[in-house]
Amino acid sequence: MRAVDLIRRKRDGGTLDRAAIEFFVGGVTRGTIPEYQTAALLMAICLRGMSEAETLALTTAMIDSGVRVTYPGLDAPAVDKHSTGGVGDKTSVVLAPIAAACGARVPMMSGRGLGHTGGTLDKLESIPGFRTGLSIDELRRAIATIGCALVGQTDQIAPADRTLYALRDVTGTVESIPLICASIMSKKIAEGIGGLVLDVKTGAGAFMKTVEASRQLAASLVAIGKAAGVRTQALVTRMDAPLGRAVGNANELVECFEVLKGRGPEDVESLSVALAARMLIVAGVAAGGPEADAKARGALRSGAALEKLRQIVENQGGDPRVIDDYARLPAAPDRAVVEAPSSGFLVALHAECLGRAAVALGAGRARLDDEIDHGVGIEIHAQPGAALRAGDPVVTLHHRGGRGLDEALALARQAVGVAAAPEAPAALIVEELS
Amino acid sequence: MRAVDLIRRKRDGGTLDRAAIEFFVGGVTRGTIPEYQTAALLMAICLRGMSEAETLALTTAMIDSGVRVTYPGLDAPAVDKHSTGGVGDKTSVVLAPIAAACGARVPMMSGRGLGHTGGTLDKLESIPGFRTGLSIDELRRAIATIGCALVGQTDQIAPADRTLYALRDVTGTVESIPLICASIMSKKIAEGIGGLVLDVKTGAGAFMKTVEASRQLAASLVAIGKAAGVRTQALVTRMDAPLGRAVGNANELVECFEVLKGRGPEDVESLSVALAARMLIVAGVAAGGPEADAKARGALRSGAALEKLRQIVENQGGDPRVIDDYARLPAAPDRAVVEAPSSGFLVALHAECLGRAAVALGAGRARLDDEIDHGVGIEIHAQPGAALRAGDPVVTLHHRGGRGLDEALALARQAVGVAAAPEAPAALIVEELS
Repeated sequence: MRAVDLIRRKRDGGTLDRAAIEFFVGGVTRGTIPEYQTAALLMAICLRGMSEAETLALTTAMIDSGVRVTYPGLDAPAVDKHSTGGVGDKTSVVLAPIAAACGARVPMMSGRGLGHTGGTLDKLESIPGFRTGLSIDELRRAIATIGCALVGQTDQIAPADRTLYALRDVTGTVESIPLICASIMSKKIAEGIGGLVLDVKTGAGAFMKTVEASRQLAASLVAIGKAAGVRTQALVTRMDAPLGRAVGNANELVECFEVLKGRGPEDVESLSVALAARMLIVAGVAAGGPEADAKARGALRSGAALEKLRQIVENQGGDPRVIDDYARLPAAPDRAVVEAPSSGFLVALHAECLGRAAVALGAGRARLDDEIDHGVGIEIHAQPGAALRAGDPVVTLHHRGGRGLDEALALARQAVGVAAAPEAPAALIVEELS
Repeated sequence: MRAVDLIRRKRDGGTLDRAAIEFFVGGVTRGTIPEYQTAALLMAICLRGMSEAETLALTTAMIDSGVRVTYPGLDAPAVDKHSTGGVGDKTSVVLAPIAAACGARVPMMSGRGLGHTGGTLDKLESIPGFRTGLSIDELRRAIATIGCALVGQTDQIAPADRTLYALRDVTGTVESIPLICASIMSKKIAEGIGGLVLDVKTGAGAFMKTVEASRQLAASLVAIGKAAGVRTQALVTRMDAPLGRAVGNANELVECFEVLKGRGPEDVESLSVALAARMLIVAGVAAGGPEADAKARGALRSGAALEKLRQIVENQGGDPRVIDDYARLPAAPDRAVVEAPSSGFLVALHAECLGRAAVALGAGRARLDDEIDHGVGIEIHAQPGAALRAGDPVVTLHHRGGRGLDEALALARQAVGVAAAPEAPAALIVEELS
């Protein structure tokens, strides 16, 4: 088999069989296929697409490029959630303890923030001592004992994806549904899960800007999950404005604690519960929607989920006192307020602009090796739909000595839209696929 | 400007402006754009196409990656011919001396054989002592004195094309009309010609298998030539069976000498005259078709063209005695005959199969750095349309000690089609574009 023949076949709109895809992914993993041939094939896939069978074969080959974790002796299949990335999207820290408190086994593997979207690992690392880099043995032990761990991906999980993703980033081949799908699903399935809930974001702050594209991606993810034997459900959810009232790292964590204490923003709570309930269903812990919802809400209301998070933090070496004493978390000392430019109604709080403002302050990264500042971030005073008077604070930037402030202020001002007439905010959950 | 943005623009079907294309070709030439980005852009161009303006900008940028030869003090614009490549396609060696004998200035830059198609340089190098690697100064002197030189391309001509071509070959991006067009035209225009005649081959032995694709390529080549200020004409000609009765190197040269002596195969003579006549027109040496045709035929009939070839051979260090004494050329000692499997009419003599048979014998190359044997080749006894009896010789393979013979015999047998009813052979010249 020659790489150039596979490239030509895909270029001409043909189909790559399992052997061809295994040859390609194997060559990428071992470094025997040069990057220029990989790049050409990625572009051909980007423009010609892939069938569901091809996408499944690609996913499987990417899983087989590394290890597939197993959890011997578990009473229920392990489950996870994946979000396609948003601004203020902090649900993992809320829903993982909810689902685990209800009896689900949750080996949650998360990523770091990149570009305008944040990452769960960065938020968790605001906690002094918290280790996200568990070994697979430590992960297994956590799942067997407390039922949950919040960790990063090890190098052994789908190594082909790292190579392919780096190349896609510089060759204009990120935006391809089969490639996105194989990238997400290979990493998730290699975690050894039996159930998966996907939060596919849509809108101005999402990777997929239109509902149609998001729905396509969600459908493809669900199809691949099922074909690979993983019970998979997806929600398409709005990401026009940030989720909740905090964008950053330590401040987002505080918001998660508040939700788990029953006094957080409604949007974060309701989305976390909706996703956690579906995790209970795919885990087989709840039989259907109403039971799952009741269980998830119950774990939140009883404080069981908060207690579960405390166990998780302790188990991963973090200081659990942060949950009650927020002053133990990093916080930037300086403030700059963006006010409503006129009286009226808040009709836009552009998630991508605010995400980029947070990056400018140091809360996120332009490149994966950038350092971040866990204490800076954005505090949101008014969510879309709110009535405002000119001069009312809309967002406050928490900065450190003015670092990145000019750029962040310009972006934050650009994010704010005030109009004379209110616009009804769109429902958070657009669609459900299962 | 960032390469990834150009890739994304072309991926989405957008247009690259002159500055973008210059940035890209400049980066390829200097090595500042990595090969994986070039490969991704080439695939995007392959699948999204390029407008005529983009193709012209690409051609111009590729010309500007090297030197553009000039011929100070010439009385007429220099002219050249280019063929897209065929089997037994030896017209250059016939038509260059015809055109030069009629007063045209012909700095003919040719290539080497690759794959199943032969190359003029290889054929010429059958002549003991013949040098195809002239410097630009030597080329200028030849044009000023005898009016013609048959040479290879120097490294200074369109260096970007060498890099791009090598990458296209391994990334499945050879078959793109704008990329083919820019590759051909950049090299030809950089030669400093004012007129160009293109022989675009079509059919089983050609790069373009259908008349429609060949016509598209021819139209694109003519359009780019004209836009670049070069008088350009094109013929689309059939390449189903080999041209003439010899496939190889020294044996093809003998066939050229025979044509110049008035006793060669009709197809080689008529195509060479047709192409030479058009070179006279684009050179301004003849006013129109009938005059050009008469001049070309006159140079052939009078022996002036043969005499011109003798001058060319002498000028480039070759032994001119080969023209009269073919025994001075390399010749393989061994023979194997392929006979007609049944009585009937020869309806196929598949050019690509015979080209590959010649490569197997050692007359051509699979890779550009392979060595070739100038003495081996194929002798054709019957051309399509001929009546045959079972056992009649159709082709004779001239081999050296059986090297590559099994493969060559299998291919040659595959090439021969005999049927009970004759098929009228298609006209050699399918279409003319100017």
